[in-house]
Amino acid sequence: MEFMTGVNKKDTVEISEILAGDFEGKTVKVNGAVHTIRDMGEVAFVVLRKREGLLQCVFEEGKTKFDLKDLKEAATVEVEGAVKSEDRAPNGFEIRLDSIRVLSEPVAPMPLAISKWKLNTSLEANLNNRSIALRNIRERAKFKIQEGVVRGFRDFLYEQGFTEIHTPKIGAKGAEGGANMFRMDYFHRPAVLAQSPQFYKQMMVGVFDRVFETAPVFRAEKHNTKRHLNEYTSLDFEMGYIDGFEDIMAMETGFLQYMVDLLKKDYEKELKILGVTLPNVDKIPTVRFDEAKRKVAEKYGRKIRNPYDLEPEEEALIGQYFKEECDADFVFVTHYPSKKRPFYAMDDPADPTFTLSFDLLYHGLEITTGGQRIHDYNMLLEKIEKRGMTTEGMEQYMDTFKHGMPPHGGLGIGLERLTMKLIGEDNVRETTLFPRDMSRLEP
Amino acid sequence: MEFMTGVNKKDTVEISEILAGDFEGKTVKVNGAVHTIRDMGEVAFVVLRKREGLLQCVFEEGKTKFDLKDLKEAATVEVEGAVKSEDRAPNGFEIRLDSIRVLSEPVAPMPLAISKWKLNTSLEANLNNRSIALRNIRERAKFKIQEGVVRGFRDFLYEQGFTEIHTPKIGAKGAEGGANMFRMDYFHRPAVLAQSPQFYKQMMVGVFDRVFETAPVFRAEKHNTKRHLNEYTSLDFEMGYIDGFEDIMAMETGFLQYMVDLLKKDYEKELKILGVTLPNVDKIPTVRFDEAKRKVAEKYGRKIRNPYDLEPEEEALIGQYFKEECDADFVFVTHYPSKKRPFYAMDDPADPTFTLSFDLLYHGLEITTGGQRIHDYNMLLEKIEKRGMTTEGMEQYMDTFKHGMPPHGGLGIGLERLTMKLIGEDNVRETTLFPRDMSRLEP
Repeated sequence: MEFMTGVNKKDTVEISEILAGDFEGKTVKVNGAVHTIRDMGEVAFVVLRKREGLLQCVFEEGKTKFDLKDLKEAATVEVEGAVKSEDRAPNGFEIRLDSIRVLSEPVAPMPLAISKWKLNTSLEANLNNRSIALRNIRERAKFKIQEGVVRGFRDFLYEQGFTEIHTPKIGAKGAEGGANMFRMDYFHRPAVLAQSPQFYKQMMVGVFDRVFETAPVFRAEKHNTKRHLNEYTSLDFEMGYIDGFEDIMAMETGFLQYMVDLLKKDYEKELKILGVTLPNVDKIPTVRFDEAKRKVAEKYGRKIRNPYDLEPEEEALIGQYFKEECDADFVFVTHYPSKKRPFYAMDDPADPTFTLSFDLLYHGLEITTGGQRIHDYNMLLEKIEKRGMTTEGMEQYMDTFKHGMPPHGGLGIGLERLTMKLIGEDNVRETTLFPRDMSRLEP
Repeated sequence: MEFMTGVNKKDTVEISEILAGDFEGKTVKVNGAVHTIRDMGEVAFVVLRKREGLLQCVFEEGKTKFDLKDLKEAATVEVEGAVKSEDRAPNGFEIRLDSIRVLSEPVAPMPLAISKWKLNTSLEANLNNRSIALRNIRERAKFKIQEGVVRGFRDFLYEQGFTEIHTPKIGAKGAEGGANMFRMDYFHRPAVLAQSPQFYKQMMVGVFDRVFETAPVFRAEKHNTKRHLNEYTSLDFEMGYIDGFEDIMAMETGFLQYMVDLLKKDYEKELKILGVTLPNVDKIPTVRFDEAKRKVAEKYGRKIRNPYDLEPEEEALIGQYFKEECDADFVFVTHYPSKKRPFYAMDDPADPTFTLSFDLLYHGLEITTGGQRIHDYNMLLEKIEKRGMTTEGMEQYMDTFKHGMPPHGGLGIGLERLTMKLIGEDNVRETTLFPRDMSRLEP
């Protein structure tokens, strides 16, 4: 009988293993995709693309047992050769090739010049050839950074006593109702796709006190802007036993600090590839919604057209204001008007036209919405009735509050937006592997 | 100007802090939900439910500044009192109450006796009152274990050089086609919900060599069994530069070993609550599909009715066989018939009626399907044509193979099934927070 006993040891080595070991002059076997071939006559540079970066291999006519004519860019190969220090090569070493074994071959020329340092193409062409475009070193680096953001979120929250949850994306009624929901048929019953895990994470506060989820959310918004997607990854948390909504902002600040440290530690290579300067997260200013509007109106000579909402341009100016006034990359805007927040938002007892809620702006773009929620059953019911809503389809959500819920609050962070701002892109599609917008359903 | 500078320090303490510190006789503040009140006359035991477990508080008539009549089970409270060692209390200590402050109160009696050790109710009643039922200590422990499984999957794969990805759940056409897809309207275009991230993770192998995703998948299967859900969490990975599909099974074995170690280390409390004995994952036997059928037929006197498929009863018997023959909790069944596997499965060159694929059975239940995929464009096209399929709607998937793809393979693990088997449950709804099946769309 045969058995599996654990990860198979490979006879091929990775870049980090070569860097960590004493391989000078030694023969190694490595695999990778042929990123570029630069034929100089007697010698050719064959650069392999590996998950850890680029690896320069030197083909020598008469020495390397292979016919260079048979090697194509985009082929995948396994090669053997001696490791040699070389300052001009990526990572400071190259491999003098003894032999090449082709694992797979392309059957068509590349639609994009992915081996260029910057992918010199339109976003449209990039997205239309997405699985190829992402092979570009800079393109793929964006998504390693994104991995770091999600890892940071989870690892920080585990440390803070949060429990990870998985809540359903198909449901009978949405957390915040309204027209923004994708509708579908569920075994002959009408169903919707979750636009947020809001109801579920609140229900789970009664179980675990502190919970989080990193999962897709779906919004049927008819927006076609640089900052909207119809499907995105939401980093959500919800925590009980808070003393006020400031606890939520403080927890988010802690996350951002943890994330920045993690990126510095484990994603230095990608930060360098993209030339990213990480934001300052030591302290994040907070400003009331109405005060922010006033400050911006005064400083930039802008009229306040709608006292109950922030226009995108106003958000941008708030970002600019706090950058100029206190060199802040982030700013918490607090106390949003009650009429612009969902029914479950806790109104400010000092003035119930405002809520104990906030948005976090990053260089003038909203990347988080959060706040304290109503935890008292009667207060919740009263607010629902005052809004002319009914509790139909939310029976279990409502029941949860009948049986005791601690004061609590939480937030949702748009992963793609946060990544976009971190790396200085200006279209959220740049930081989404396979974006979904009003016109794009493929690939 | 006010600033957020990081996580707010609380004046309340958690159970683990008390256990780690020198608190005997000292006054502390703690919060929690009132799990039970046991009134003994002059003294009452008020047990708080906190995220880390139960905490016994002692109310003393005349000493505790509070009227016990005003305290209800399911209220949330903040209490103050002195820590006192007490062997009979959970965690070995109790709190002698000085004062109680009520944070929130229930408005209706509990629908379930959640403070009982075992929730003595039907699954139906449990699911109909899910957010309350999950407050039971044993119920919630299941989902801490589930957290450990997911954490183990991610942390292990990070270590193995995998990159985490987030792929879209709404698409134009499904990875494996067929009738199992939920259909929806996407801005007046027909769309489907992803039944697996298959196409995307394969496309991403060309980018990062090794990728994984932990995300929901959707199956419109008209099954109503104990082991089927219509939405579940899939733990998926895909890896390039494999020497054979054995590399995939070896990687999964490595994950299971890592997971078991993590559960022992960080989830000991929950394992104890549920009385879980972790499975043996040192070595996992492998057996060919046809051989497994034969072995079971011989040993248990069972006729082979369909040589191309495994019936659930046959899977159960294979599990029983390997438990009896070599005390194995898991068994890899390999070389599934080609006609029962999707088009992208790599056929076995030695006999193309079988594939280089496998299922992993855990005590006789399939928890994983995986295998090697076709990486050669022409071979893929040929197989699609031989099956009478077209490449329509899969253009970008197909294009990926035109431009060079390494030999690769991967797998998908059903998180809820794996959790169910780990803790010895027999209905997958028991290990799903809010299950979705043919009749259940709420809560």
